[in-house]
Formats: sequence, structure tokens, C-alpha cells
Amino acid sequence: MMVIALGGNALVRRGEPAEMKLQRHNVERAVNAIAGFASSQSLVITHGNGPQVGLLALQSEACATVKPYPLDVLNAETEGMLGYLIEQALCNRLPRRKVVSLLTQVQVRADDPAFTQPSKPIGPLYDIEQAGRLNELYKWTVARDGRGFRRVVPSPEPLAILELQAIKVLLDAGAVVICAGGGGIPVVDRGAAC
Amino acid sequence: MMVIALGGNALVRRGEPAEMKLQRHNVERAVNAIAGFASSQSLVITHGNGPQVGLLALQSEACATVKPYPLDVLNAETEGMLGYLIEQALCNRLPRRKVVSLLTQVQVRADDPAFTQPSKPIGPLYDIEQAGRLNELYKWTVARDGRGFRRVVPSPEPLAILELQAIKVLLDAGAVVICAGGGGIPVVDRGAAC
Repeated sequence: MMVIALGGNALVRRGEPAEMKLQRHNVERAVNAIAGFASSQSLVITHGNGPQVGLLALQSEACATVKPYPLDVLNAETEGMLGYLIEQALCNRLPRRKVVSLLTQVQVRADDPAFTQPSKPIGPLYDIEQAGRLNELYKWTVARDGRGFRRVVPSPEPLAILELQAIKVLLDAGAVVICAGGGGIPVVDRGAAC
Repeated sequence: MMVIALGGNALVRRGEPAEMKLQRHNVERAVNAIAGFASSQSLVITHGNGPQVGLLALQSEACATVKPYPLDVLNAETEGMLGYLIEQALCNRLPRRKVVSLLTQVQVRADDPAFTQPSKPIGPLYDIEQAGRLNELYKWTVARDGRGFRRVVPSPEPLAILELQAIKVLLDAGAVVICAGGGGIPVVDRGAAC
């Protein structure tokens, strides 16, 4: 069994805008690179979502209609979006393989210290003035990333993948399984285990 | 085998804003109503996404950073978001059942007449002035819906569910399967069948 992880920069390159046309192009390029493995192996594909979840957060803040959605929900949205793009590109490239995308939750600890020390950069690069404005406007934590600044969010330690059994069932049935995008949707166990 | 369809109005009631807190509450209420069936039956759950996909389209238009994403991609995002909310609520209510959400594409015809006759209302209700502005600003088709106006989008006839085999595999393994949200992500076959 093989696991391939497509990094966020394979889907939106550093400094590129997260345009859909560009992402489709980048996804196709990434899929071409892995198609050789995908044609015969038992394969799981996972992917980053930094640029995409950052964009959804920006869009969510920009539209005054409703309060911005929290990051777990936005992560679920990116699993839908990127799962779809990767699944479609891989199906087009390898029409004989079954490819599916499964929503994936990962269990984390509510008291993980990462929640008070945001470290994972998401969304576009900003200059120092823009970064200061976003910090003031939305209370985002921003941090230096290369030559610019980006929003940083908590990246808690994953303890368990809640859909592990279903992933195995789908692999056993011969499907390529796309899952755990963006590291999975972080959830905490408050006593009702799934 | 039982199929339960949660209508868009079960998740965001008519006239309600699509706030996340309200949606979580409505999803929990809907899940409480179906939990009796879910505890023992072989069960597929599907759901509408009109208010949610409309909100994502508004957000996508409101943020000038990148061009608005097309409706197939936004539909995939809502499958992620609503799949997550329903899966989580059902897991909390029935901790012994496995519940999974599978991204679902439905094949449609590129020349389906629905593409030139948008009929499916999405997003919030507008008054006649707002509707006129949106039509002018975004070139949206708007139509009367009850006492107000809403954006309408094409609703092509579904021909096939591309992930049908995987849905069956998951059902056979004893999972409740959430799929085909928003009617599924509409795709056309240009010769490379998945």
C-alpha cells in the first residue's frame, strides 16, 4: 500500500493566486506525475489545503451576510473542493481505476498546546502593512513566512483518523482513496466516540 | 435499504440566515428525527444545499482576491461542509454506528436544456431592488420565489451516480453513507468514463 501526499504548493504554487483555472492545471500536473503509481498500486492520496482554506476564510470574512464559519467547517469545504478536483483529474487520466474521496475527521486534544500557539501558515502572502491591517480587522495571528507574512492557525497533533475502517474497506474494494485533506477535519471527543 | 433526503429547509429554514450555529442546531434536530431509522437500518442519507451553495457563491463574488469559483466546485464544497455537519451530529447521536460521507459526482448531459433554463433557487431571499442589482452586478438570473426573489441556477437531469459501487461497498460494510448532497456534483462525460 502506498500513500502519496500532495503538498499545498503542488496545488497552488507559492505566490500564485488561488484561481480555479490554475488549480485545475496544477492538479492535472500533479496527477500526471503520480499516475504511474496509481495505475496498479493500492493507493491513498492525501493533500494540503493551506492556500485554499485561507481563501475560504477570506471570502467568509468579506461577505457580511453571515458570521464567518470556523476553520473546522472551512477545512471540510476544502476536502470537498480538492477531493473533487483530484478525483476528477485522476479519473480522466486513469479511466479504469475507481477513485473516491472520503471526508475525514481526525481526533485532536482540546487542550493541545497548538491551540494557543498558531503556527501553520494559510492563505496568500501579505506585506507588513496588509498583515497589520488583517490582524487588527479580523484578530488574525500573522507571522513571517519567507519574504512576506501570512495568517497562521493552530495545527494540533492528530491522534486518530475516525474513518480509518471505511478507508480500508474502500482500498480492499480496489479504489484509490483520497482522504484526510488538510490533515483532516480536527474534532475532539467529548464522550460520544464515533 | 432506506434513503433519507434532508431538504435544504431542514438545514436552513426559509428566511433564516445561513449562520453556522443555526445550521448545527437544525442538523441536530433533523438527525434526532431520523436517529430511530439510522440505528438499525441499512441507510443512505442525502441532502439539499440551496441556501449553502448560494452563500458560498455570494462569498466567492464578494472577495476580489480571485475570480468566483464555478458552481460544480461550490457544490463540492457544500458536500464537504454539510457531509461533515450531518456525519458529526449522527455520530454523536448514535456512537455505535459508523457514518461516512462520500463525495459524489452525477453525470449529466452537456446539452441538457436545463443549462439554458435556470430553475433551481439558491441562496437567500431578496426584494425586487436587491434582485435587480445582483442581476446587473453578477449577471445572475433571478426569479420570484414565494414573496421574494432568489437566484436560480440550472438543475440538469442526473443520468448516473459515478461513485455508486463505492456507496454499495460502504453500505455492505455496515456504514451509514451520506452522499449525493445538492444532487451530486454535475459532470459531463467527454470520453473518459470514471
